[in-house]
Amino acid sequence: MSNRLERQLNFLIEVDKLKTVTRGTTLNDGSRRENSAEHSWHIALYALTMAEHAERPVRVERVIKMLLLHDVVEIDAGDNPIHGNHDPVEMEQLEQAAADRIFGLLPADQRDDYRSLWEEFEAAESDDAIFAKSLDRVQPVVANLESGGGSWHEYQVTHEQIERRVGVKVRRGFPKIWSLLKARIDDWFETEHR
Amino acid sequence: MSNRLERQLNFLIEVDKLKTVTRGTTLNDGSRRENSAEHSWHIALYALTMAEHAERPVRVERVIKMLLLHDVVEIDAGDNPIHGNHDPVEMEQLEQAAADRIFGLLPADQRDDYRSLWEEFEAAESDDAIFAKSLDRVQPVVANLESGGGSWHEYQVTHEQIERRVGVKVRRGFPKIWSLLKARIDDWFETEHR
Repeated sequence: MSNRLERQLNFLIEVDKLKTVTRGTTLNDGSRRENSAEHSWHIALYALTMAEHAERPVRVERVIKMLLLHDVVEIDAGDNPIHGNHDPVEMEQLEQAAADRIFGLLPADQRDDYRSLWEEFEAAESDDAIFAKSLDRVQPVVANLESGGGSWHEYQVTHEQIERRVGVKVRRGFPKIWSLLKARIDDWFETEHR
Repeated sequence: MSNRLERQLNFLIEVDKLKTVTRGTTLNDGSRRENSAEHSWHIALYALTMAEHAERPVRVERVIKMLLLHDVVEIDAGDNPIHGNHDPVEMEQLEQAAADRIFGLLPADQRDDYRSLWEEFEAAESDDAIFAKSLDRVQPVVANLESGGGSWHEYQVTHEQIERRVGVKVRRGFPKIWSLLKARIDDWFETEHR
């Protein structure tokens, strides 16, 4: 039992590093970029607060678990801004190796449980994962709207790209929030390109 | 429904500010102080990973909800390092006012649900809250051990104070982790005062 607890503690010590992984998105106040640990907290709270609106019924506890774990592989593989350029095949290899190493710190049963939740999130096929992905995509949109453009400026994102790269995925799991945000997004792009 | 979703979104926008509330504890690598949002993520993951060792059986989903919410009042009231000086009566008033304002952004049913979870955490009487509190207390101990002393240096904390202010509370909900850490804590103080 002591060895089991030690393994769990080693995992929790290792994942502290997620606080040093910087994302493309800033805080709502624009003061700095957010990191993947605080982002994970934020979208877990999105899930807790908004699960009732999911397009298909979800088990909120599973969605929250997925979101707490979804970015842990970035400790080794780094963050990939959705509007940035990266090689998806190379990225997939890096993330799989990261999952081997980091989840491998845990006792075998938890290693397998966490790995399988992370794979489910990545696959985005189950109702829980589809909703979780929609929250992961929509929170940066809210941050950009609040901060006056944020990473949309930096990556010179077009209105059409937002719809195609983000809107399609958010609407798959959480169409109601895209409807709510759409007017704000339209306004932002209209003001920006006037 | 749209008004309900808007209220929920306003709450989630407001709590972004928790990412700017700085705690006494540093990251494990000592590079900077951690903030209350990433701390909340970290201890939610502690709960998910270690709930099986709780001194009394807990409902891990409730513990995680509590931990996601437990520091939100700090947006208005600020963080109180456990080894710092603050007036507990004044602090209690500030936190109650913060809970009124911040949870008050939500639809009434969620406002009451979140408020009651936060009050339960603060009271530290239920099994779920006692375990949640023990995680909130033990994560900074791990960070200090990893970073070579961290806030123990800054607040000139004694070995006896660690036992009395932290150990007693951690052991109430999670005695096994205190047993695991005790040798490391003893070593640290012995080396420090040699």
